[in-house]
Amino acid sequence: MPKDIARYRVRRIKERGRYDAPTIHGILDAGWLAHVSFANDGQPFVIPMLYVRDGGDILLHGSIASRLQKTLGEGVDACVCVTHVDGLVLARSHFHHSVNYRSVVAFGRAKPVLDAQEKADALLRFVEGMLPGRGVEARAADRKELAATSVLRFEIVDASAKIRAGVAKDDADDIALPHWAGVVPVRPHYGVPEASEDVPASVALPPSVRRLTGALDRDEAA
Amino acid sequence: MPKDIARYRVRRIKERGRYDAPTIHGILDAGWLAHVSFANDGQPFVIPMLYVRDGGDILLHGSIASRLQKTLGEGVDACVCVTHVDGLVLARSHFHHSVNYRSVVAFGRAKPVLDAQEKADALLRFVEGMLPGRGVEARAADRKELAATSVLRFEIVDASAKIRAGVAKDDADDIALPHWAGVVPVRPHYGVPEASEDVPASVALPPSVRRLTGALDRDEAA
Repeated sequence: MPKDIARYRVRRIKERGRYDAPTIHGILDAGWLAHVSFANDGQPFVIPMLYVRDGGDILLHGSIASRLQKTLGEGVDACVCVTHVDGLVLARSHFHHSVNYRSVVAFGRAKPVLDAQEKADALLRFVEGMLPGRGVEARAADRKELAATSVLRFEIVDASAKIRAGVAKDDADDIALPHWAGVVPVRPHYGVPEASEDVPASVALPPSVRRLTGALDRDEAA
Repeated sequence: MPKDIARYRVRRIKERGRYDAPTIHGILDAGWLAHVSFANDGQPFVIPMLYVRDGGDILLHGSIASRLQKTLGEGVDACVCVTHVDGLVLARSHFHHSVNYRSVVAFGRAKPVLDAQEKADALLRFVEGMLPGRGVEARAADRKELAATSVLRFEIVDASAKIRAGVAKDDADDIALPHWAGVVPVRPHYGVPEASEDVPASVALPPSVRRLTGALDRDEAA
C-alpha cells in the first residue's frame, strides 16, 4: 500500500470510515473550527483555526503566532481535523459508553493566499461560514486590512471521514441490568445576542442573527 | 425578544495568553474532547480523543487506530489541544469578526496505563467527565474489558491557555456604520434523550441525564 494511502485509512473500526467526497465535504461544510497540526523538528503543534472549504481545498485563517503561521505557509506537511459532536452514547456498562460524532482528517500542505481579491473573498467566506447572511451586514475588508490578513490555502492530498451514529452497543448479558441506555443528542445552542454598547437603539438585530437564534422564524410564524 | 435584554452591557476583556495552572485546569475540566497531535517521520497527525484531567496529567482514551495508539504510547512528543467556543463575535467589518473561545495547548508525552485498577478508575473518570453522575448508573468494567481498553497518561510538560472574550473591537471609523455589532453566545445544547429500544418502560431516565437536560431541575422546582 502506498504511503499516501496508508496514512488516511481508518483502521480500527472499518465500518466507520468513509472516503467519498460528498461525505467529507458535508462534514467540512457543517463547521468552521478546525484543529490544524504540523511538526517542527519533530515537535508537533496543534492549534484551533477558522476554516472554510473551497472546492477540494480548505482555506485557513486564525489568530496564530507568527511562527506557526509562517511554518504552515511554508508548505510543510500538515493535518487538519474537523470534529462535530452529535450525542452522548450511554450504555449499561462503562466500557460501551461512547460519543456520536462526525470527523474528517485531511492531509496536505498549505500555501499563503497572496492575491488581494482572493483574500477579500476568503474573508467574506469565513464570515459567511460562521454565520450565513452576515457578509452583507458588515463592511468588506479594505486594502490595509487585506495586507494585514493572512489566509492560507490548504490543498487536501487525501482525507478520510469517520462517523459514529446510533445507540449504544450493549453486551447481551447487560440488557437485563436495571440501567438506562440511549443517546443524548448534542448540538450548538445560540443564546441571547449581546449588542456592543456603542450600537445605537436605531440599529436592529440583523436578519443573520435573528435567523440563527430563531427569532426570525418566530416572527414570521406569528 | 425585548430590546433591553438583547442590549445588556458587555464587558471588554483583553485577549491574552495565560499560563497559570488554575486557568489551564479550569479550561481542561470544562470539556472532554481533545485534539491530539504527533508526528511520525515528519508527517503530522491530529485525532479527536476523549480525555479527562488527572492532576497535572491528561488521561486519553479513544477509538483510535492501533498504529496511532501505539505511536502515542511509545512516548513520542505530542501536543494536546482543547477548545471551547463561547460566542460568535460580530463586528461592523468583515476584518474584525472573531470568535470568543477558551483553549489550552499542552505539550508532553504519553505512556500507557497498565495497572488494571488505574485503568478501571480512568474508565470511570471518562464516563463521569462526559456526564457527571453517570458512573454509578452503569456497570463498571470487568477484567476482560479492561484488558481490551487502552488508556494513555499524557504528562503535561508545559501548557498555555488562550482566552478571547468580550465584544468586537471595531475601528473608530466604523462605529457610525448602520451595522449591528455584538456577540452571540454559543454553548452545547442537550436534546431530548433517545432510549435504546431494548430499554423496558420500567427503567426511568436516570438522574444524570435528567440533570443534564434540565428535567430534574424543573421537577425539583415544581
